[in-house]
Amino acid sequence: MMKITKLVSNIVLGRGCIRELKAFAGELLPDRSGYDVFIVDSVHRNTGTWDQLTPDSGDLMMAVDVSAHEPKTEQVDELCGRIREEKGDALPRVVIGIGGGSAMDTAKAVSVMLTNPGSSADYQGWDRVKEKAVPKIAVPTLAGTGAEASRTAVLSGPVRKLGINSEQSMFNGVLMDPDLLESADPEQAFYTGMDGFIHAVEALNGSAINAMGRPFAEKSKEAIQRFFSGEGSAEELMVGSYLGGASIANSSVGVCHALSYGVSFYLGYRHGIANAIVFQRLEEFYGRDVEALRAMALRNGIELPQDVTAGVSSATLDKMAEMAYLLERDLISAMGEDYRRILPPERIVDLYRRM
Amino acid sequence: MMKITKLVSNIVLGRGCIRELKAFAGELLPDRSGYDVFIVDSVHRNTGTWDQLTPDSGDLMMAVDVSAHEPKTEQVDELCGRIREEKGDALPRVVIGIGGGSAMDTAKAVSVMLTNPGSSADYQGWDRVKEKAVPKIAVPTLAGTGAEASRTAVLSGPVRKLGINSEQSMFNGVLMDPDLLESADPEQAFYTGMDGFIHAVEALNGSAINAMGRPFAEKSKEAIQRFFSGEGSAEELMVGSYLGGASIANSSVGVCHALSYGVSFYLGYRHGIANAIVFQRLEEFYGRDVEALRAMALRNGIELPQDVTAGVSSATLDKMAEMAYLLERDLISAMGEDYRRILPPERIVDLYRRM
Repeated sequence: MMKITKLVSNIVLGRGCIRELKAFAGELLPDRSGYDVFIVDSVHRNTGTWDQLTPDSGDLMMAVDVSAHEPKTEQVDELCGRIREEKGDALPRVVIGIGGGSAMDTAKAVSVMLTNPGSSADYQGWDRVKEKAVPKIAVPTLAGTGAEASRTAVLSGPVRKLGINSEQSMFNGVLMDPDLLESADPEQAFYTGMDGFIHAVEALNGSAINAMGRPFAEKSKEAIQRFFSGEGSAEELMVGSYLGGASIANSSVGVCHALSYGVSFYLGYRHGIANAIVFQRLEEFYGRDVEALRAMALRNGIELPQDVTAGVSSATLDKMAEMAYLLERDLISAMGEDYRRILPPERIVDLYRRM
Repeated sequence: MMKITKLVSNIVLGRGCIRELKAFAGELLPDRSGYDVFIVDSVHRNTGTWDQLTPDSGDLMMAVDVSAHEPKTEQVDELCGRIREEKGDALPRVVIGIGGGSAMDTAKAVSVMLTNPGSSADYQGWDRVKEKAVPKIAVPTLAGTGAEASRTAVLSGPVRKLGINSEQSMFNGVLMDPDLLESADPEQAFYTGMDGFIHAVEALNGSAINAMGRPFAEKSKEAIQRFFSGEGSAEELMVGSYLGGASIANSSVGVCHALSYGVSFYLGYRHGIANAIVFQRLEEFYGRDVEALRAMALRNGIELPQDVTAGVSSATLDKMAEMAYLLERDLISAMGEDYRRILPPERIVDLYRRM
C-alpha cells in the first residue's frame, strides 16, 4: 500500500499570537460557522492562560483534568456527551485543544467523536475512523509532545492504552505562542522536552526512519537540546516539538519507549517521566545522548528519579519485561529481527533493577 | 496581519512510486471525478518518463517546452485555452505538473487559471487570486527548485517576470520518485541543485529568516551539499528540495538572487545558472559556501561559466546593477537598511566585471 505522509499545515508562530486565535480560526475555516469548543488543561485556570482566551457567547469552555492520568476514552465520551447536551446536533465550527499532549490528544479525540458514532474506545487503533472529523486547532502550552503535529490521540481505554491513529485525528492548524510555555511547571516542562528528545534519539537510531523522517527528527533533537542547554529560544523549541511530531510517521521509537511502557503501567509514572527514568539506564544503546540528557537535567536543576523499582517484586518486573515486547516493530527498528536474543527478558529485568 | 505558514502536505516518496501516481490522485481527491491534465516538460518525450505515465482515455497529456525560457503567461493562457477547447466548462479532477521548476510552475498557474477569469498576467503578484484553484500534484524530475513546496509560480509576463504568489498556487501533494532524477541532463541537474543550495545559503545568512524557516533551510542545504559531494542519496536530495521550498515563506533570498536578476534579464542566462555565475564571486558575503559550491562543481565535472560579462557595455552593467536594487527586501535581509552604502552600484558593477 502506498504511504502518504501528511503534515499539519497552517502554522502561526510568535510571542503573543494567542491573541489571534479567533482570527486564525476564521482564516482557516472561512466557510464554517457555529460555536467553538475550547478544551483546556484545567491547570490553566490558574496560570493566566485561561483568562487570555476570548470565547464568544455561544462558545463552550471545557476544562479537562489530566493531572492524574493520561486522557481516558470515558473522559472523551463524557465531553462529547456534554457538548451534545448543550448544543444538540449542531456541530462546532472548530475544536481547540490548549495544553500539553493530553489536552491536545483529548481535543483530537473529541473532534473525531462528534461525527462518529459509539464510544471513542471503538476507534483505538489504526485507521478505524470513518467519518470526517470536526476541524481542530492545537495550542500547545508544553513543548516536546509533538501531539500538535502527529496523527495519534493517545487514550487509555477500558481494555488498553492505544491511540486513535487516523488522518482524521490530525490538527488543521497549530498556533505556537512561546509565551504560553512560561506558565508551565519547570519540572513538567523539562520532562515533556525530554520526551521529545528521547523520541528523536530513538527515531534517529532506528532502522525504520527514512529520508522524510530523518531531517525532521534531527532538527527536533537539536532544538530541544539547544533549549535545555540554555542556547536555543522558546520559539525554536516549539518548532522543534512540531518537527518531532512530524517525524513520527516516518520513523519508530525504540528501546526506551518499549521499556517505559511497563514503568508507566505498573509503577504509575507518566509517559514523559517514565521515559526519562528508563533512558538514563540505556547507555549501551544511546550512549552519548544519555550523557546529554543527564547534563540537561543538571543544568535545569532536575533530579532524575532513582531507585523507582526498589521494592517492586520479581514477578512484576517479569511482567514489565514481557510488556516491552509488545512494541515489537520498534524493537526490530532498534535492534533488528534478533531483538529478543540481544535483549532477553532477564536483561530487561536487570535494567529495571537499576532504575 | 497574522502570518499563516502553509506547508504542502501529502507526500509520497520512494523509488518507482511514479507508478502510483494515479492511485495517489485517487487517495487525495476521493470526492472528485473527471479527467486529469498532465503538464509535462517536453524533454520527457525522450527520457522515458513520458512513457511511464499512464493516462486514462479522457486525460489530457500536454508537453510544455521550457527549454528556451522560463514559463510565460501567454504559454499558460494558451494551455488553458486548449483545455477549454477540448473539454468545454468541465474542470479536470487534478492538474499534474511533471518536470523541473518551470513545468511545475506552469502546472500551478494552469490550475489557477482554469477557475479564474482573464489572463494569467492579471494575477502576477501577491494574493491576487480570488477563486479556488483546481487541485494539483507535483512530480519533480529535477531537485533543487523547491517549486513543489512553495506558493510561487514564477512567470514571465508582458511587462515583468513575477510569480503568481498565492495560497491557491500551492500543490495539494508531491510525488517524489528519485528514479526520475536519473533522466536529467547532469549539467542541468547540477545547476538546479545549486539553485537550491544558494537559496538556502542566502536564507540562512539573512535576517528575515525565523524559527520556522531556519530548520528547513538548514536541512535543505545539508541534503543538497551531501548529494553533490557524493555522500547523500537521491531520496535525501528530493526531500531537501522540498524543505528548501518550504523555507521560502519564512526567509528571504539575498545578494546572489539580487545580482542574478540582471544576469538573467540582460545576458539571457536561466535562473539556476545565473545564480551560480554570480555566487562564485560573492566570497565576501558567503565565503565558505562559495568554496563549497566550487568544490561541488569540481567533483561533478562542471565548469562554472567564466567571463560572461566580457564585451558587455558599461551602460548595460549599470542597468544590471540598478536592477539588483529591485530586490530591496532581500538586500535589507542580507545587509541591513544600509545596503546601498555597503553595496553601491559601482561595487556591483565591479562584481559583474569579474563574472
